[in-house]
Amino acid sequence: MNITIMESEIREEPEIVGKILNNNINVLLKIKSYLEKRYLDGIYISARGTSDNASNLGKYLIESMLGYTVALSAPSLFTIYKTPPSLKNRIVIGVSQSGRGEDVCEVIAQGKKDGALCIAITNDPDSPLAEMSDEVILCWAGEEKSVPATKTYLAEIFNLYLFCAILSDRTDILNLLKNDIPLYIKEVIDKSYGIDVTRFHFMDRCIVIGRGFNYPSAIEFSLKLKETSYIFSESFSSADFLHGPLVLVSPQMPIFIFMPSGPSYKHLKEVIGILEEKNTEVFSFSFERLKEERLNFVLPFKVDEVLSPLLFAPAFQIFANRLAVEKGINPDNPRYLKKVTITR
Amino acid sequence: MNITIMESEIREEPEIVGKILNNNINVLLKIKSYLEKRYLDGIYISARGTSDNASNLGKYLIESMLGYTVALSAPSLFTIYKTPPSLKNRIVIGVSQSGRGEDVCEVIAQGKKDGALCIAITNDPDSPLAEMSDEVILCWAGEEKSVPATKTYLAEIFNLYLFCAILSDRTDILNLLKNDIPLYIKEVIDKSYGIDVTRFHFMDRCIVIGRGFNYPSAIEFSLKLKETSYIFSESFSSADFLHGPLVLVSPQMPIFIFMPSGPSYKHLKEVIGILEEKNTEVFSFSFERLKEERLNFVLPFKVDEVLSPLLFAPAFQIFANRLAVEKGINPDNPRYLKKVTITR
Repeated sequence: MNITIMESEIREEPEIVGKILNNNINVLLKIKSYLEKRYLDGIYISARGTSDNASNLGKYLIESMLGYTVALSAPSLFTIYKTPPSLKNRIVIGVSQSGRGEDVCEVIAQGKKDGALCIAITNDPDSPLAEMSDEVILCWAGEEKSVPATKTYLAEIFNLYLFCAILSDRTDILNLLKNDIPLYIKEVIDKSYGIDVTRFHFMDRCIVIGRGFNYPSAIEFSLKLKETSYIFSESFSSADFLHGPLVLVSPQMPIFIFMPSGPSYKHLKEVIGILEEKNTEVFSFSFERLKEERLNFVLPFKVDEVLSPLLFAPAFQIFANRLAVEKGINPDNPRYLKKVTITR
Repeated sequence: MNITIMESEIREEPEIVGKILNNNINVLLKIKSYLEKRYLDGIYISARGTSDNASNLGKYLIESMLGYTVALSAPSLFTIYKTPPSLKNRIVIGVSQSGRGEDVCEVIAQGKKDGALCIAITNDPDSPLAEMSDEVILCWAGEEKSVPATKTYLAEIFNLYLFCAILSDRTDILNLLKNDIPLYIKEVIDKSYGIDVTRFHFMDRCIVIGRGFNYPSAIEFSLKLKETSYIFSESFSSADFLHGPLVLVSPQMPIFIFMPSGPSYKHLKEVIGILEEKNTEVFSFSFERLKEERLNFVLPFKVDEVLSPLLFAPAFQIFANRLAVEKGINPDNPRYLKKVTITR
């Protein structure tokens, strides 16, 4: 069988993180020294779609590692209502694969006007977003041809990890990002082919659950299942899930759950218990064997919970790609969608 | 037919906003004068479930009317990871109907430690959240007995409107909140009984769309459809929807859309056009007649887009309640749920 473009793009990820490590350290050190000289109070991030999911993880990383509060933008306040908040004393980060989202560019334009330090995370150094920003953190992913973003999501979140590790002087994390993660990502991709997706052939709805650092993994996996396989998949933080959406479950309902080994483990074990009582089909992505192979993908390496989204991402991307193929859908060109969506 | 508790609680809403107007102005003026004496940079809000949806609207209101950036909390950073961001120079607002969410209380505790001004929006003056906060904005909703929150959602968002109107000296909005909105809410509730819900009897999935100020309306309506009628309902900002989830639609798919008359109108008209091309069934909540009655609820009064969530809320709450009854489900006690969920 021919491999899809999406699949070949996922397979580029280890090489892309290598390029980021070789090329982005200097700009990050420059941002670090810039911040040391200046009062900064809070970070404001603007993005859409997959880049917004990456930014959501960025919020967790920045708040926990750098201690700044992070607000994710409501772009309509800038574009259609023209009543933006003040971005004074902020770092404003625009995240966009193409660098062509008009709404993200308008948030950056307001940041410039308010004297904020504006940073672009983008795959295109010649894009409007890159040109208008003070500093550009590139994704080095090469052109992304498949409509569902995969390698650029990984590149965006890897850049956000590197940003936080360098700005917080966390050499332990920096060393893992440099030495281990690229290899681990490659091994995760290879091992992900072992997941038996055929049992999900007729799945037309599902729930995806993550907590904390993997709430963004849940949102992004859910989006990939939609885009590649037209599955009505809803994602929740496990905490919010128990507040209300739990009513949705019924016997046989497929539920995917990200289950790192770390501080969220105990809580997630309880959630799995509640779900299994209701005879749902829980499939876990984890670092330890939790159940039989057909319902549990065990990653080949164990990392700290904070880093786990970097390894879950290639696994769920391969899963989504292979499920689309299993269903006879071409994941490279989902119906109705274009590669670049420009929203005002 | 007996009316449900949920329905009787929705019907209390006009009276509740009257009580808020009679009792909360002083505490809001006190907060206003406090803020005038103090450097404050950004607002941090913590909430779960329905209160989180109310807070999402609060973010739009505060950013656009007060100009502060608003970050919605990631509670797990406070509870399970113990790596919270600094809340110095912040206003921290905890929103909780019961005032008993442990995670929301932990965010407030951190705010106190960092010297932030801590404000509770809650229905219970004797709750731990109220007791630990510097100022308490009460909902005056009386005990809420039905599991799906309705009157307390309306009370929370009404308080957030009042907070913004008073702190920004917007007497135009304040006058509307005082003189017109309570009456309008009552009329909307009465008129909402005219919606023909029987055609949705067998609906088991749907999409709910809103833009800007009504993105939170979409999330909250979607949650009510889940909680009361076990419908797999997904909500999106119309901007994000076109980026990817558009692939989900197929002929006959029911789509609900909030369509105020204002700055988002043109964009939403285009979205409706795209959806109708695909032969979906679009049901609109609007202020002008858009199509035939069975697929369009026209509100009896017209208000500015920024205020429209106050009138859409009782309409979609009545819709959700009546659909549950139509489906033979008791909306007061959804399966698996308890009234107060305590999440760490």
